[in-house]
Amino acid sequence: MSGTTTQHAGRVHDLLAHMTLEEKLAQIVGFWEKEDGEAVAPLQGEFDAPTGLDDFARDGLGHLTRAYGTRPVDAGERAAWLRSFQRRLVRHTRLGIPAIVHEECLTGLSAWGATTFPTPVAWGASFDPELVEEMGAAIGDSMRRLGIHQGLAPVLDVVRDPRWGRVEECIAEDPYLVGTVGTSYVRGLQSAGVHATLKHFVGYSASQSGRNFAPVHVGPRELADVLLPPFEMAVLDGGVRSVMQAYTEIDGVPVASDRSLLTELLRDRWGFDGTVVADYYGVAFLHHLHHVADSLGDAARLALEAGVDVELPTGDAYVGPLAAQVRAGRVPAELVDVAVLRVLRQKEELGLLDDAFAGALDGSDGAAPIDLDPPEHRALALRLAEESVVLLANDGVLPLTGPGRTVPTRVAVVGPNADRAEALFGCYSFVNHVLPQHPGTDPLIAAPTVLEALRDRLGGTELVVAAGCRVDDDDRSGFAEAVAAARDAEVAVLVVGDQAGLFGRGTSGEGCDTDDLELPGVQRALVEEVLATGTPVVLVLLTGRPYAVGWALERCAAVVQTFFPGEEGGAAVARVLTGDVNPSGRMPVSLPRSAGAQPYSYLHPALGEGDEVSNLATTSAAPFGFGLSYTTFARTDLEVDAETPTDGVLDVRVRVTNTGDRAGDDVVQLYGRDLVASVTRPVAQLLGYRRVHLEAGESAVVELRVPTTRLAFAGRDLERVVEPGELDVWVGTSAERDVQARTRLVGDVHRIDVSSPRWTTAEVR
Amino acid sequence: MSGTTTQHAGRVHDLLAHMTLEEKLAQIVGFWEKEDGEAVAPLQGEFDAPTGLDDFARDGLGHLTRAYGTRPVDAGERAAWLRSFQRRLVRHTRLGIPAIVHEECLTGLSAWGATTFPTPVAWGASFDPELVEEMGAAIGDSMRRLGIHQGLAPVLDVVRDPRWGRVEECIAEDPYLVGTVGTSYVRGLQSAGVHATLKHFVGYSASQSGRNFAPVHVGPRELADVLLPPFEMAVLDGGVRSVMQAYTEIDGVPVASDRSLLTELLRDRWGFDGTVVADYYGVAFLHHLHHVADSLGDAARLALEAGVDVELPTGDAYVGPLAAQVRAGRVPAELVDVAVLRVLRQKEELGLLDDAFAGALDGSDGAAPIDLDPPEHRALALRLAEESVVLLANDGVLPLTGPGRTVPTRVAVVGPNADRAEALFGCYSFVNHVLPQHPGTDPLIAAPTVLEALRDRLGGTELVVAAGCRVDDDDRSGFAEAVAAARDAEVAVLVVGDQAGLFGRGTSGEGCDTDDLELPGVQRALVEEVLATGTPVVLVLLTGRPYAVGWALERCAAVVQTFFPGEEGGAAVARVLTGDVNPSGRMPVSLPRSAGAQPYSYLHPALGEGDEVSNLATTSAAPFGFGLSYTTFARTDLEVDAETPTDGVLDVRVRVTNTGDRAGDDVVQLYGRDLVASVTRPVAQLLGYRRVHLEAGESAVVELRVPTTRLAFAGRDLERVVEPGELDVWVGTSAERDVQARTRLVGDVHRIDVSSPRWTTAEVR
Repeated sequence: MSGTTTQHAGRVHDLLAHMTLEEKLAQIVGFWEKEDGEAVAPLQGEFDAPTGLDDFARDGLGHLTRAYGTRPVDAGERAAWLRSFQRRLVRHTRLGIPAIVHEECLTGLSAWGATTFPTPVAWGASFDPELVEEMGAAIGDSMRRLGIHQGLAPVLDVVRDPRWGRVEECIAEDPYLVGTVGTSYVRGLQSAGVHATLKHFVGYSASQSGRNFAPVHVGPRELADVLLPPFEMAVLDGGVRSVMQAYTEIDGVPVASDRSLLTELLRDRWGFDGTVVADYYGVAFLHHLHHVADSLGDAARLALEAGVDVELPTGDAYVGPLAAQVRAGRVPAELVDVAVLRVLRQKEELGLLDDAFAGALDGSDGAAPIDLDPPEHRALALRLAEESVVLLANDGVLPLTGPGRTVPTRVAVVGPNADRAEALFGCYSFVNHVLPQHPGTDPLIAAPTVLEALRDRLGGTELVVAAGCRVDDDDRSGFAEAVAAARDAEVAVLVVGDQAGLFGRGTSGEGCDTDDLELPGVQRALVEEVLATGTPVVLVLLTGRPYAVGWALERCAAVVQTFFPGEEGGAAVARVLTGDVNPSGRMPVSLPRSAGAQPYSYLHPALGEGDEVSNLATTSAAPFGFGLSYTTFARTDLEVDAETPTDGVLDVRVRVTNTGDRAGDDVVQLYGRDLVASVTRPVAQLLGYRRVHLEAGESAVVELRVPTTRLAFAGRDLERVVEPGELDVWVGTSAERDVQARTRLVGDVHRIDVSSPRWTTAEVR
Repeated sequence: MSGTTTQHAGRVHDLLAHMTLEEKLAQIVGFWEKEDGEAVAPLQGEFDAPTGLDDFARDGLGHLTRAYGTRPVDAGERAAWLRSFQRRLVRHTRLGIPAIVHEECLTGLSAWGATTFPTPVAWGASFDPELVEEMGAAIGDSMRRLGIHQGLAPVLDVVRDPRWGRVEECIAEDPYLVGTVGTSYVRGLQSAGVHATLKHFVGYSASQSGRNFAPVHVGPRELADVLLPPFEMAVLDGGVRSVMQAYTEIDGVPVASDRSLLTELLRDRWGFDGTVVADYYGVAFLHHLHHVADSLGDAARLALEAGVDVELPTGDAYVGPLAAQVRAGRVPAELVDVAVLRVLRQKEELGLLDDAFAGALDGSDGAAPIDLDPPEHRALALRLAEESVVLLANDGVLPLTGPGRTVPTRVAVVGPNADRAEALFGCYSFVNHVLPQHPGTDPLIAAPTVLEALRDRLGGTELVVAAGCRVDDDDRSGFAEAVAAARDAEVAVLVVGDQAGLFGRGTSGEGCDTDDLELPGVQRALVEEVLATGTPVVLVLLTGRPYAVGWALERCAAVVQTFFPGEEGGAAVARVLTGDVNPSGRMPVSLPRSAGAQPYSYLHPALGEGDEVSNLATTSAAPFGFGLSYTTFARTDLEVDAETPTDGVLDVRVRVTNTGDRAGDDVVQLYGRDLVASVTRPVAQLLGYRRVHLEAGESAVVELRVPTTRLAFAGRDLERVVEPGELDVWVGTSAERDVQARTRLVGDVHRIDVSSPRWTTAEVR
């Protein structure tokens, strides 16, 4: 706790001492205002909620929910309204406490006209935490300028099943990649003075059969070793200020009611001192969905006891029902006080309790124009999109232009995602692109499609265009036109994939789960028909999840995978196709063999080889970490110390050489395998990574210093340990082995409570 | 412990006191003899093993592994050889201790010429534990006559994923159905003096993505509430004498090395005092597969410490490597003694240490003929097969004959399983049917195919026959013939399904997992082509697992599901089709929607309805417990006490009336749902069931007395509790509700250590 906060501790206690129960409860809930000033209708109409903001905020207000993000509003006008609202709270409530304003910011600030960055799974593909930190800072900057204090991102759920619709919101299937990239986002956002919120603590991504909200079948070891580490990193290394509870239940216990996770682990063990907020309606779901509470009041009691401080988006359980519980003596008033104190401390930390904040509200309420999509943000969005493009296959057809290549005279640009800006965006870009537009409004931001961007770059080439089909229906009536376009072209760029949506209204996104990992709708059939023309096919995937497209890697001339790359994603794809950018993204998730082969993770223990055990494959269609380049890299001279103490640092050096004829980035990936341990361990585990730019012919030595804590796991007694013994370590083009060495950890079993250090450092020399 | 055993306790201690380490280790291992007298080559050649039985058994022998079951041998001759072998042990080893002879007996004794009963999942479909107990007694009788002491059955793994190849070996997806039917098998087998062995303790069926041996992701609550109860019932109510460890790992800990399960739960809590045997090579797998042991000796130490008494099928880890561990002081000799004592006690219990046993060996070694497939066993096999046939759909086309019906003049009998005896058998019927036959040998037993049995029963009907395709390849060249046969017929009986196999050499069975729940090979295409003829199709499924055939329920005139029904299965199917038997089987597993929708169990908690949550269905293609009849049953007058103490018995009465025009069996199924609990609870749970025979128009009241322990679950602290509160109870045609009532458990939370009573009793009045 900083000196400043300590100095002010008296202030929040004084405030608390003077609050009525109603004023306290008002501080630990949100209010979500509809356009007409009424409350947003709570989910399925099952909740009672006060209807007017002014009425509701009479006793103050903890959070103002999503002031920008659910409809097209002019940012400047809305910011002015927000100032006036805060002024009302400061001047016309008894205690004069402003509200925390929170907003979604997963793929950029969720506001009309704000830069839409690539989705998190594209951040993972970039293997570039520094760039993600820059993006976080840019997003935070926009938010701060709009009077927003807290952002509901990042999502640190480790991908466990590609069938889940929310994979696009996650970073990767490796906890370390999630942890490093996610923590960087937190640092960036918070560097702008906006509090980040970790979603969804914890387990949500491991739901049964990839179905949203379905039960999570994991034991405590898998939780500790796979699902929790990213959160630990973001709390301890990122200093995140807020954490959101997951909707899910783990082995029968809903997280919203689990004190062992929300309090004993998060606060008592990790020392987290920020706020825990409910996922929207997550408190009420203890009653309505999980049936572990017999009323909303009981749900409120369970959540508060577990450690959920703030009910969002509204106060259905915490306002009336919890008040009744407190009055009936079923919930100690002190439990409410703990949560209120945390919120007050957060407000103090954000400066909301300072005179300067109130003073600033005195200014004009006139709406100054605010550019939420400035050129420097667009440039960042483009760089991140470029770094996230994964080249999965290439027989030499790519790049389409460049030294020694004849620019094609005719290119077919076909497929349902070729000329659709919506295809660039994930479901949390809903304000601009996914929710049905409000009449008379347009997306404010420019988002050139793949076709438009190609047209910009292939001036002398005739582009023949046909969608062929839509993403998500069975209409094949456009096939013939697409096939004809391809037949007459030298190459066909076939752009397929997803349409993001919310609440089941898309092929990827929240509620858009699938039990089938073929390309949605009739897109595979379209690919087959275009392939049958004999024209070389460059398959471009604009998706939110990995699909089972192993078949395409052999049969298409090239396959380019992008994960909803954002407003500059069309440009990024075009620049990769034309060779202006050398692709350097790496798969942050395994490419699945089929829906029926799920769940699958590259982090599996030995599965038993040979048909005696199972006739099913042990591998994915393309491994975690895989990705090609227009140049080639050689990895040589792997050096690893022969022995490292179990509480030491494993020093690894490898030479990487650009052996091709053009500059490019390699992502040096270091993996390890603990050969014998007291519990089963994965056959491969990412220990560290580093993106390296090398000119043609250039060579560099990358030194990775791996703290042995990266090899820690929950031992037999669930204590985290580093055990002595032999290790294989290797550097590969993916999780598969390229150059490898065997080494040994020596000494006693090293027991660690909270693992530190947690990061592998890497130096390029 | 019985008086007899206590009286003899001195004998086994005396024996132990006189044993060398080698003699001790010999008692806790098996020997598996090949035809040439050498040891069976251990899996993948990774194990060192002594090569000659005589040499190996110099110091005695714990188990003789599979004396009958791996090749066609004449039972009488082999029994004579066995007597001579035991005589050698008694006379020519220092201590004169005979070996336990164990054999597989999952679908009947695994010996050439023995009755092949339906597979366990068919037992589940019968909902008839009494009949399964009769079958167990019959199997035990054959085994006892052959000098076999221990049978490696039943499998009590609760089905968790239909993709797993070993589903056919399991009884059901409901733990109570598994527990009651499985315990009945144990009682039957052990009533004949043969020790049963519970497989596979525990967790094996929940492996990731249905892949054999893959890790099991479950927490302690799911283990306690779903996977363990059948074992608890078979130990405490069935008095089972042996338990086999599961290959699997649970949350990173291989069961073979898990003392908390094999000793603390099984012995210390449940009071089990029999032997724990390793699944074949399961000890060595701690080294070779799970990599939690750095050598075979270390694997032996881990297994022995955990509580694996006997290494099977051979002694690769327990003989040489464990001896070295003991001599080096890394394993206390006392730990070996504990296991040896348990084996000696088992031998004493089996009478092997009695003078009478040795005396009986003095008789002639002449081979008396032994009939292992007597008429009374065949009759049992037929009854169980008949009761296990599930009618999934019927538009009135069935039965084909009977009162008021014209016998069809021409019936097409098509499909790859129509005229194949192998299609009737599961993978554990390998001695007769699945393993490649030895040259010059035939299956000894008669197993009429569906076609043959239909021909027997449809004398005046022309049967037009065509296989159409094989089960497991892509050859469609036979389609035309099958389609032609169907086109010219009044009805087409189309018999499709699985070919059981071991080690991946089949479409169902051990190692035969799948990531695709469509019918194997081109069988769905065959069904589609036959359907296209317009001839009514009666689809008969001879499978080991449920397939995703929801589409067929609407489009075929009738669908009949059988699960490898054994040697009389062809007759059973024919009798159902012709109406000689009124089908009464009920689905012991949910009919899956697709492979991509797995895992799925009807025992799921509330999943959240509506597209806001997920666009995927919450239901299966047909629910657990579903099955039609040629008559109809009405369930009325459900009566439930308004209140029951949490430590009491819930009394439920329901009237069942045969409202149709022919006699039949209904399976009265009672389900419940705990409306609010401290942890999430399933939306439906089988509380009790009872098969009832009713003549046309007849009515009966079924009274089910449900001990509240049936509603117990692992509470927040993992203690087993029955909580007060409201319950829905209903009787349905399946897990779906038909007649229902709400009731209430009252009183304090009832904490129970080992749950007793565990059985719902049912009376028909």
